[in-house]
Amino acid sequence: MLSQSQLLQLFKETRKDSESICSYLETEDYVVQPIVDVSPPKWHLGHTTWFFEEFVLKKFAKNHKLFDENTAFVFNSYYESVGEKVVRTDRGNLSRPTVAWIYKFRDYVTKAIIELLENETLSTEALEVLEIGCHHEKQHQELLYTDIKYILGNNPLMPGYNQQFEENPIQNFEREWINISEGVYEIGHTSDDFSYDNELGAHKTYLQEYTISNKLVTNAEYLEFVQAGGYQDVLLWHAEAWDWVNTNNISTPFYWHKIDNVWHQYTLKGLVKLDPDAPVTHISYYEAFAYAQWKGMRLPTEQEWEIAQKDFEWGSRWEWTESSYAPYPDYQKADGALGEYNGKFMVNQKVLRGASVATSSKHSRYTYRNFFHPQLRWQFTGFRLVK
Amino acid sequence: MLSQSQLLQLFKETRKDSESICSYLETEDYVVQPIVDVSPPKWHLGHTTWFFEEFVLKKFAKNHKLFDENTAFVFNSYYESVGEKVVRTDRGNLSRPTVAWIYKFRDYVTKAIIELLENETLSTEALEVLEIGCHHEKQHQELLYTDIKYILGNNPLMPGYNQQFEENPIQNFEREWINISEGVYEIGHTSDDFSYDNELGAHKTYLQEYTISNKLVTNAEYLEFVQAGGYQDVLLWHAEAWDWVNTNNISTPFYWHKIDNVWHQYTLKGLVKLDPDAPVTHISYYEAFAYAQWKGMRLPTEQEWEIAQKDFEWGSRWEWTESSYAPYPDYQKADGALGEYNGKFMVNQKVLRGASVATSSKHSRYTYRNFFHPQLRWQFTGFRLVK
Amino acid sequence: MLSQSQLLQLFKETRKDSESICSYLETEDYVVQPIVDVSPPKWHLGHTTWFFEEFVLKKFAKNHKLFDENTAFVFNSYYESVGEKVVRTDRGNLSRPTVAWIYKFRDYVTKAIIELLENETLSTEALEVLEIGCHHEKQHQELLYTDIKYILGNNPLMPGYNQQFEENPIQNFEREWINISEGVYEIGHTSDDFSYDNELGAHKTYLQEYTISNKLVTNAEYLEFVQAGGYQDVLLWHAEAWDWVNTNNISTPFYWHKIDNVWHQYTLKGLVKLDPDAPVTHISYYEAFAYAQWKGMRLPTEQEWEIAQKDFEWGSRWEWTESSYAPYPDYQKADGALGEYNGKFMVNQKVLRGASVATSSKHSRYTYRNFFHPQLRWQFTGFRLVK
Amino acid sequence: MLSQSQLLQLFKETRKDSESICSYLETEDYVVQPIVDVSPPKWHLGHTTWFFEEFVLKKFAKNHKLFDENTAFVFNSYYESVGEKVVRTDRGNLSRPTVAWIYKFRDYVTKAIIELLENETLSTEALEVLEIGCHHEKQHQELLYTDIKYILGNNPLMPGYNQQFEENPIQNFEREWINISEGVYEIGHTSDDFSYDNELGAHKTYLQEYTISNKLVTNAEYLEFVQAGGYQDVLLWHAEAWDWVNTNNISTPFYWHKIDNVWHQYTLKGLVKLDPDAPVTHISYYEAFAYAQWKGMRLPTEQEWEIAQKDFEWGSRWEWTESSYAPYPDYQKADGALGEYNGKFMVNQKVLRGASVATSSKHSRYTYRNFFHPQLRWQFTGFRLVK
Repeated sequence: MLSQSQLLQLFKETRKDSESICSYLETEDYVVQPIVDVSPPKWHLGHTTWFFEEFVLKKFAKNHKLFDENTAFVFNSYYESVGEKVVRTDRGNLSRPTVAWIYKFRDYVTKAIIELLENETLSTEALEVLEIGCHHEKQHQELLYTDIKYILGNNPLMPGYNQQFEENPIQNFEREWINISEGVYEIGHTSDDFSYDNELGAHKTYLQEYTISNKLVTNAEYLEFVQAGGYQDVLLWHAEAWDWVNTNNISTPFYWHKIDNVWHQYTLKGLVKLDPDAPVTHISYYEAFAYAQWKGMRLPTEQEWEIAQKDFEWGSRWEWTESSYAPYPDYQKADGALGEYNGKFMVNQKVLRGASVATSSKHSRYTYRNFFHPQLRWQFTGFRLVK
Repeated sequence: MLSQSQLLQLFKETRKDSESICSYLETEDYVVQPIVDVSPPKWHLGHTTWFFEEFVLKKFAKNHKLFDENTAFVFNSYYESVGEKVVRTDRGNLSRPTVAWIYKFRDYVTKAIIELLENETLSTEALEVLEIGCHHEKQHQELLYTDIKYILGNNPLMPGYNQQFEENPIQNFEREWINISEGVYEIGHTSDDFSYDNELGAHKTYLQEYTISNKLVTNAEYLEFVQAGGYQDVLLWHAEAWDWVNTNNISTPFYWHKIDNVWHQYTLKGLVKLDPDAPVTHISYYEAFAYAQWKGMRLPTEQEWEIAQKDFEWGSRWEWTESSYAPYPDYQKADGALGEYNGKFMVNQKVLRGASVATSSKHSRYTYRNFFHPQLRWQFTGFRLVK
Repeated sequence: MLSQSQLLQLFKETRKDSESICSYLETEDYVVQPIVDVSPPKWHLGHTTWFFEEFVLKKFAKNHKLFDENTAFVFNSYYESVGEKVVRTDRGNLSRPTVAWIYKFRDYVTKAIIELLENETLSTEALEVLEIGCHHEKQHQELLYTDIKYILGNNPLMPGYNQQFEENPIQNFEREWINISEGVYEIGHTSDDFSYDNELGAHKTYLQEYTISNKLVTNAEYLEFVQAGGYQDVLLWHAEAWDWVNTNNISTPFYWHKIDNVWHQYTLKGLVKLDPDAPVTHISYYEAFAYAQWKGMRLPTEQEWEIAQKDFEWGSRWEWTESSYAPYPDYQKADGALGEYNGKFMVNQKVLRGASVATSSKHSRYTYRNFFHPQLRWQFTGFRLVK
Repeated sequence: MLSQSQLLQLFKETRKDSESICSYLETEDYVVQPIVDVSPPKWHLGHTTWFFEEFVLKKFAKNHKLFDENTAFVFNSYYESVGEKVVRTDRGNLSRPTVAWIYKFRDYVTKAIIELLENETLSTEALEVLEIGCHHEKQHQELLYTDIKYILGNNPLMPGYNQQFEENPIQNFEREWINISEGVYEIGHTSDDFSYDNELGAHKTYLQEYTISNKLVTNAEYLEFVQAGGYQDVLLWHAEAWDWVNTNNISTPFYWHKIDNVWHQYTLKGLVKLDPDAPVTHISYYEAFAYAQWKGMRLPTEQEWEIAQKDFEWGSRWEWTESSYAPYPDYQKADGALGEYNGKFMVNQKVLRGASVATSSKHSRYTYRNFFHPQLRWQFTGFRLVK
């Protein structure tokens, strides 16, 4: 648990980071929502601010005057129990409130929180919600990167975001296969550091013996699968995946483009040649699974990943696992609206482990459980194999 | 046919008008597309400019250097024969090119056309296309008003556009019924003034005797229909209309809101009380037809409207007619891409006659044939009755 | 107006004809509904019977005992004002009531009507509804043929319906162009014979001079259009048609199949070679229009067709016209549920004139106005050209 | 592994059972497919027969002459790798082949298999496929019951299937809570009896301590949840479940009807009063989960169920578990088309354990893993709770 002064520091950094990420945008880039999974950047900025006003200032700051009673509700997202909200698909239809308004809203709330932290002694409950608010904003920072990438990368002009942003990490080490022996292991978050409720409830699990790669599958390796006709071989795919491939004419990872017979990928720098040694990214669980089938291997479960992770480098790609997102034994969701944070998504999603180039500092740990629907590709998703 | 100097004048005015209309917008308002029928204002500004560069400068201006070869194609709309285009539904997903870029594009093309008109003697063909370009832009000015109204009026904050914009005209005269006797009449555009190809081919038509109102149906009159349960009486509606009413839960004209039991309407000034004496507007053909059924009357055909129009005031509402949009006898569509202007829409649409508060100056005439699908309501549509 | 004994004769013939048409079916063929436009044959048999019980026996037969109070409602179709009904798309999901039940229902109602006509002197109102009921059933006989053709012709086994059914008429005469001079003509039904309300209201119309073919467009002629790339040339098509062609991958008339490089068509006999001299059939209005554009000609209006029809053979194909389905001047729809018969379809449909090989005897006349949405193809639709 | 003569017996019984189930149907009931999850009974009869001809007779019976080379392919289901198939949603559009044809096809194939088993000594491979074929048909018998229930129970006439079919089992014993202690347990199929590939790979698993009910949740208990507003409390539901509830207006288990204020349920006998003591059935995983949330309990995992099952009666309802359907460690799918049997469904589905009143004799065992999407309700699904 952070002290109040540590929390003040975390809060200031976090708020600043969101704004730094957006500093490369044009006003127009803040507004659009090309698909339902992507939110407009201005919505992320407003929503994370609304969270602090709704759950911290309203409850714990005496005499706090709301910035704008009639407007902030448009930044409620999925908290069904908190009242009126704008339908998710409509976020990109909202030209108002403007970007300028949102920055004023941010400043107002940021200052009010800082004042609170500097001048009042807060209860543990207040500090906990504030810490969640910071991590919540860090999650949205990750989405800011991937949503901006989608907005710019699906624009027919394919403009770059930032010429200095290097998203393809180097894995300049040899592939090795790490062997883990059969037995009972312990899983879950145990330290005093921050975690979400879905990581808690450390518990024992039995693992069979397995062998896991220290290295992510690379673009060059995945390209072999593409060229070997992997996307055309029904026997490699789940039934739902096969429908998805055919309905959407999927034949490569997302953001790959073949131009004049040369493979390119859109990155946050703009369009560049495909880097053969970089880990493949922007693939669905379905594709990771089909590739593994093709190699006669499989994906790790999240438990296998957690036990083996200390022996490999990770953090540049979110890694798909075979595990469906489910509650740990004795999972307890929080009371009230914050109870909507995790538990209600525990169906039809796959767990991802690790972190990615879009992950904020202080926001990755080996017990972290991310989750997405198996067909989604706009995150920096990759995978490693188990024999 | 306008002289070259008259055309220069028309061109300058027209270009300036589009920019005046947009001068009340925030940058964000230029970007969004809440429904497929609405285009982002920046798209209108870019598209009308693209039209001049594509059809005038490219063909008739020696040595014209394109403003930006790689970008302008995003402003091609429906001209399938001209090449690549952005799918209509995606217009609201494009944050780039920016609004600033578009204004530069406009200036560049505006200056090039002015230079051309001032310094070269243009062929009749070139002058004709230029004149079409001006009227094309005037059509888009009409859409700018109605699309802006949709964007702001469907925002949960319902901001006003311009406090000075009066959209509800006064009809301070008594209702009278104009009688037109049976016989052969002539229809269609015959003067030398500008018209579209769909108005040409003046021809004879036989009209039965009819009696037509000099006044549009008012909000107060339409409200009686609403309160009498008109939207719940299946026998008043077309089969497709009944599906539309029920699927979309339609129970009033668009932009009507009942707040604390008082009827309001959203206007370009913002939300105001419903004006009982103003003509009802933002209704579909389906609703106009159902109202007429309820009154035991009918809508005029476009021929009846055209013959009777000299005896009534019009121009504040586009008026639905009973006529389906179809070619006049001997209709000839233009060769090439400009042939796509009108003819290809001649199915499943209803003709509207008149003009509206959103219609640009010098853009209305009694032979003008506007057309929309029967369920659409975002235009300033109203109607008058025939006994 | 028919006498009561003539009506008895008409009624008996009509009832028998429906059953003769179905005599070639297997029980299973009566049940299915592969697309929403097609109804299961058993539904047609039940619905036409329900019509007589609902509108004749219930109202005009003293002491009539309903065959089955709890079941007949499933055969209500679109008469929204009569009460509960089964959603149209669900007709093919109803295994009950069985075919055997429906034949018993038919017998019961047929006998009751015969008894009524033989033993009672009926009012004019009753006789009129009975006559409408007979013509209503004849309309459904037409649909029985086309719906059976759809059911069998879209089955992967493509079974024939009846080896003796010759659907391709011979047009063994030369093409001639009939010239009609400009002037005022009279249109509409005037005799005492039966007609629907939409044909009444004979009235004057002004026609420009025109020249119309005495012959329908043939398969051989249409095949030239197919082979010349007509389905790939955007400039020939309405905008909505172009979407329809591309969304549905349309490249030939319906029921055409190229097998081992030879063109075949599915007919009610089964699959046969395409007959080059037969009129093309099973095409949409969109295709007829595009063909006419390609030839530099056009389709006739319904008025042009009606005035010229005495000079050509017709009756083997329903012929698309350029006219949208609209009320004649002074059109009055009937009171009550029968008023739902025609008027409520007068939007977004095109008029067809003539009759087809599926048309029942005594059910064609030159003033008859059929109508379908412009994309539909499962009727025996063809067309002729106007220069 | 069964001997050849045991297998002959199993085969004969199995084939006869399918026909007994269908003996209560009218011909029309065999044909329809009201929703995509339901297949027409005639399709089940044909498909199970096709399976034996395709995978047994074609491969292992010398000189087998196919019953009908051109027709049987319509009974291929999901075996993408075996060639042409009819799209699943179109099964209900096929009036041909007829029911009579299918019974001939069945007789022909049944006799050929019996002859093979009586006269030839078959290889282990052949015997294995035959045994799978029998269990495959038993699975379809289960579907026959539930699909027939759907077909009749969603018909507006709600006819009964068989007045003697008792689907509501009696649980006349007290609720007790079985405690299982923490530790390593073994899971999976180990005997020589038949099982599917997804049950194999017996392996160790670690279970935390838990307490599980010996009794299924009853209608009376579930009714309390309905009446307490469970379907209106967002906090009890997964996010996707909440959408499903609202989009489909779900407010009770499937087949429940409130008639004159009395709760009824449609059963295979027809409509009867709701039995308060019978286990609740025809509920989705979503509903089972929400009920458990409301009680402050949870569903068992499939491992917990398997370890505890020896202490409770089961077999009248398929029981939802919390487990997502996933491969056991070292799961190996079969080569070729039979490899499509299970593995390709291992995403987005929940495991059910137990068996139901529709389960065929010799088709239930405690290691059996059934699976369905979490929203499906047409199976006899129930659940028990874990504290």
